[in-house]
Amino acid sequence: MRTRPLKVALLGCGVVGSEVARIMTAHADDLAARIGAPIELAGVAVRRPGKVREGIDPDLVTTDATALVKRGDVDVVVEVIGGIEPARTLITTALEHGASVVSANKALLAQDGAELHAAAEEHGRDLYYEAAVAGAIPLIRPLRESLAGDKVNRVLGIVNGTTNFILDKMDSTGAGYQEALDEATALGYAEADPTADVEGFDAAAKAAILAGIAFHTRVRLDDVYREGMTEVTAADFRSAKEMGCTIKLLAICERAADGASVTARVHPAMIPLSHPLASVRGAYNAVFVESDAAGQLMFYGPGAGGSPTASAVLGDLVAVCRNRLSGSTGPGESAYADLTVSPMGGVVTRYHISLDVADKPGVLAQVANVFAEHGVSIDTVRQQGKDGEASLVVVTHRASDASLSGTVEALRKLDTVRGVASIMRVEGE
Amino acid sequence: MRTRPLKVALLGCGVVGSEVARIMTAHADDLAARIGAPIELAGVAVRRPGKVREGIDPDLVTTDATALVKRGDVDVVVEVIGGIEPARTLITTALEHGASVVSANKALLAQDGAELHAAAEEHGRDLYYEAAVAGAIPLIRPLRESLAGDKVNRVLGIVNGTTNFILDKMDSTGAGYQEALDEATALGYAEADPTADVEGFDAAAKAAILAGIAFHTRVRLDDVYREGMTEVTAADFRSAKEMGCTIKLLAICERAADGASVTARVHPAMIPLSHPLASVRGAYNAVFVESDAAGQLMFYGPGAGGSPTASAVLGDLVAVCRNRLSGSTGPGESAYADLTVSPMGGVVTRYHISLDVADKPGVLAQVANVFAEHGVSIDTVRQQGKDGEASLVVVTHRASDASLSGTVEALRKLDTVRGVASIMRVEGE
Repeated sequence: MRTRPLKVALLGCGVVGSEVARIMTAHADDLAARIGAPIELAGVAVRRPGKVREGIDPDLVTTDATALVKRGDVDVVVEVIGGIEPARTLITTALEHGASVVSANKALLAQDGAELHAAAEEHGRDLYYEAAVAGAIPLIRPLRESLAGDKVNRVLGIVNGTTNFILDKMDSTGAGYQEALDEATALGYAEADPTADVEGFDAAAKAAILAGIAFHTRVRLDDVYREGMTEVTAADFRSAKEMGCTIKLLAICERAADGASVTARVHPAMIPLSHPLASVRGAYNAVFVESDAAGQLMFYGPGAGGSPTASAVLGDLVAVCRNRLSGSTGPGESAYADLTVSPMGGVVTRYHISLDVADKPGVLAQVANVFAEHGVSIDTVRQQGKDGEASLVVVTHRASDASLSGTVEALRKLDTVRGVASIMRVEGE
Repeated sequence: MRTRPLKVALLGCGVVGSEVARIMTAHADDLAARIGAPIELAGVAVRRPGKVREGIDPDLVTTDATALVKRGDVDVVVEVIGGIEPARTLITTALEHGASVVSANKALLAQDGAELHAAAEEHGRDLYYEAAVAGAIPLIRPLRESLAGDKVNRVLGIVNGTTNFILDKMDSTGAGYQEALDEATALGYAEADPTADVEGFDAAAKAAILAGIAFHTRVRLDDVYREGMTEVTAADFRSAKEMGCTIKLLAICERAADGASVTARVHPAMIPLSHPLASVRGAYNAVFVESDAAGQLMFYGPGAGGSPTASAVLGDLVAVCRNRLSGSTGPGESAYADLTVSPMGGVVTRYHISLDVADKPGVLAQVANVFAEHGVSIDTVRQQGKDGEASLVVVTHRASDASLSGTVEALRKLDTVRGVASIMRVEGE
């Protein structure tokens, strides 16, 4: 074994970073044996230098992250700051100065992955980011390497633990969104500002990353259709139950039937209780991958948290260090397929629509006619009336999002339709 | 991209081999883009040269596998023959002649993995075998690479589709073992001679491979405790149901609490219906991995079949080809931890024991006394009597296998115990 250590710079020392540092120290011998050389912390860039950080030599702590990544003797930079800047500049600078990079930064990778990969390739260094998607669950590596000889057609999963916790709570207790969110916040599953999670930005970033790797095509955050879960109601869960379903916030990346285009989207959806994703509880994540030869695979585990994320970071760190020793690099960006990323209108799925309608004869016929005019075939319809008001619950067969949007627009114009109470996609069948 | 193709020799052209060849042709452009160079079939070694093989140039077919692997211009040899010989000699010869090897051969890897890895390392070549365990499910790579920075404590799973199909059938229909086996055979899920599957040899080989990688320790097939599932009865399933359990053939690799030793075993076990493994149906496989930092991960998918296995083979083929191009090799054997592989006696778990006893006063006290004398604590006991005969069903707390064996031996000597109807371990709690 080589005795000169590989030097690792850590950018950020919060929940994930401190755990990465702790494991690097606690399991130094194991890591050295697995890598083929010892690794040592060369520096830890933080915002608040005064804070006591157990197990970290205070001499290693710096507020000058730029100087740390420019040192030139650093073999690997681990970026666990998050956010776009200064992370982007620091990663780029690190690559320019000869370091490989391990990152957990989903937002940055989803936005600027192509440029960062190009920088890594230009400088002959690695850029690994298993921790950016679904925490500890090995997903990037299986998609990029294990399935490298297969054709992936679909990635469908729960990739945000916070929203899954909230939806699971709503499902199991009948609570409304706000009540469930409050509990998630109190328990530390939701941040003080939960926007990134509940509005689906976090899941959309992950969907962009997964779609890009799965389809060998650049997919940016802006390409991902995004709908949060703040408008999911207790009534939606009751409707879902009547259909033998529950509601999950799903990230779905699909290859179109013609094979020439792909879509990526994040939205709440009803899925049958018999679907394995329906039983993913609490803050866990689970992702289905469907491919031509392998068929249907599922990956399940803790999607967030300091230790699980650190596990993914350290797996990458070992791989990147091994590559440094052998003078090679792992797989970089693979975007050769360059498929069209289609907008949401082309997505084909099923829909559950609740309408408030006037309780009088002929309404159902009128509504059914609108669906027919837009080429949306109805699977089931259920009518409930009381006191001159009535509700119609329509579940469609598979139809394009554009056709469904046209249908809904036309429904809103009907005198007999008082309102569209909810529209939810039905997936996983 | 390099234009000179990498040459691939295929050993075996059965269900898996023919699918590997088909995908290599059908997806040649994709594979070339992902590898960075085209790949071409250099030869296909078969036993029956006369058979028509669609899509394979007859000029490539040979019965002289040895000459093929000795050619010297072959970059990668894909071995999908199975069995120990001639596969072992062919793989060794291929490595000696400068080829990297991709294998799906669980029996060979479990028996001679250390020697084959040593040969690969000596010649600076890769030996990959994702397809040897759990078909298409990425498991070797996640354990070896994604979790390389973590400490794996347990691998527990269903790794044989044939036995899972049979047990699932027994569970859902109340059928006996033979009836369920007959159906599995008729449907092609079981081979004409099902011994390797139903006696647990196949699962034991996979357990040896998984334990070796998970614990960085050499674990050979002989180190794995093995108990088949041919003696599982419809009555066992009724007992399991009464406990809210089902029965699965499990492969379990565990690190002992003291961290210094590991065990690997394959046997039928009761697991709670609430456990995710309980709902793994048909011929599917699923494996739980528990580690210090990542927590609990699950991997699920088709565990066998031509296409799924080919998917895993091709993923390895792409990786190995990439390594050839960059002049590097992937992770080899990691056995540095060299932990003691303990025999079954040290394994600690719970047990479900059915006893046929005399229906008279004092029997329960006598039986309970035997458990107590051997330090095995009873969780629940249920007594059923009819016509002077009675049965006692005892479920224990956690105890060592050695203590349980001593208990059972002593029970058999009691006059009032007519027989031990069944002993089954209870896992997954």
